[in-house]
Amino acid sequence: MHVPVQAIDREIWRDGIASEGTRLIPEETPLALTYNGGTYAVMMGTPQNMEDFAVGFSLDEGIIKSVDDIKSLEVVRLDDGIELRMWLAPEDAVLISERRRRVAGPTGCGICGIESIAEAVRPAAVVPCGQTFTPEQIMAAMQAIAPLQSINMQTRAVHAAAFWSPAGGIVALREDVGRHNALDKLAGALARSRTDARGGMMLLTSRVSVEMVQKTAAIGAPVMVAVSAPTALAVRTAEAAGITLIAIARQDGFEVFSHGDRVIARHAQEVADVA
Amino acid sequence: MHVPVQAIDREIWRDGIASEGTRLIPEETPLALTYNGGTYAVMMGTPQNMEDFAVGFSLDEGIIKSVDDIKSLEVVRLDDGIELRMWLAPEDAVLISERRRRVAGPTGCGICGIESIAEAVRPAAVVPCGQTFTPEQIMAAMQAIAPLQSINMQTRAVHAAAFWSPAGGIVALREDVGRHNALDKLAGALARSRTDARGGMMLLTSRVSVEMVQKTAAIGAPVMVAVSAPTALAVRTAEAAGITLIAIARQDGFEVFSHGDRVIARHAQEVADVA
Repeated sequence: MHVPVQAIDREIWRDGIASEGTRLIPEETPLALTYNGGTYAVMMGTPQNMEDFAVGFSLDEGIIKSVDDIKSLEVVRLDDGIELRMWLAPEDAVLISERRRRVAGPTGCGICGIESIAEAVRPAAVVPCGQTFTPEQIMAAMQAIAPLQSINMQTRAVHAAAFWSPAGGIVALREDVGRHNALDKLAGALARSRTDARGGMMLLTSRVSVEMVQKTAAIGAPVMVAVSAPTALAVRTAEAAGITLIAIARQDGFEVFSHGDRVIARHAQEVADVA
Repeated sequence: MHVPVQAIDREIWRDGIASEGTRLIPEETPLALTYNGGTYAVMMGTPQNMEDFAVGFSLDEGIIKSVDDIKSLEVVRLDDGIELRMWLAPEDAVLISERRRRVAGPTGCGICGIESIAEAVRPAAVVPCGQTFTPEQIMAAMQAIAPLQSINMQTRAVHAAAFWSPAGGIVALREDVGRHNALDKLAGALARSRTDARGGMMLLTSRVSVEMVQKTAAIGAPVMVAVSAPTALAVRTAEAAGITLIAIARQDGFEVFSHGDRVIARHAQEVADVA
């Protein structure tokens, strides 16, 4: 329950014949996020980098504005899960309580589907214009991920989110059975190391749903690159948030779905630099 | 917003050179589930088979016991989402309100991380002993999925859940950008057509998290087969629920992680039938 990878016995069937063997599979653990003694959410995730997850989730959900808003953070390992016990200043805790009432309001409180939907598609933070990247940088960044995915190398079954900067290459990489959790963990790692995301790219091994764009906007990165496809809503949200959304990133190339002006061929960039 | 597939213009970069083109990508829409005028949840999903999703979500979440508990169901298409407006008998609606208060209790109500975690890993329904399946049936069932994935054939970016029975083959198949939603839609389709799932197999194009096992248990199917790997918690939950969990189902075979006694080679089954 508290380690990210488990060895498990199973039967292997090939050509109608069974044999025995052991496989490494990822663990999945209930992670309860509590603030000032109340549970906000229970997420299913990989029990690793718990402090990063607690901080990143709190930032990406808009519960805190800065890592410094968390006055204390304790990782409590229970029999059937992990509690991420956070304490905020009393005035911040009041805001959570109100937000939760708004999101999951009980019957009769006046919340209707229309207001709840508006909350779900809340505008992403606007990412200001940043620097440009060459196709070679984008391809090289994505190729640098695989050797750093330590849980995935064992299990072939977890996602990764990484941050790449021109100066530092892969600055941080986090893994999780859930792609949203991996991105939350990365957000937390960047916040805790006071890394400014505005000059780099978020790299994802997954598809891109609207929530991945909203989290990237909250983190402040101008570019996101994903292995698989985006949804149409993710593209519209990236367009509105000023984010360059790159997807279908494979060995031989990639596709740009929004704000393509941040991707510039090397020779064009050299011309621009000289001018 | 209200169609499952969108054509979108994007730039394609190959070998450092950009070209223009159109790609089909899946839509993703906020789906608000409301009961008796109150919002229970907003899920992001594919806007197709909305009645199935509303019924299946309500069953899998334990909100209703039977499709007949929904007195009316209306699919309301809004500008930025879809509201699935359901009305239950007043006594059922009271239960929802209490459940929601328990799950997302506000600060100070006495809910702590331990209780919330116990709720998250609530025991799956126990599936009774069912019939057995041959490796050939399992392989044939999985190979029958692809031609029926109409959204995925266009976008290569959505999941499917299907139900297979010895008599009917693929009885129903549902698609969604979210694998949980696909399974909820399938549950709703089976319930609405009064299909007894106890004699067949659930087929999934995805990985297997604990929630997929819990939904399969709620549906009552004794066997689940998935293309990708399970989590360790999913395996433990399937073991406890009496479900045969088959995963890593590929062209050349598959792996059985729990209750392998339901998988029997054809010659062994013929011997058993004769005896």
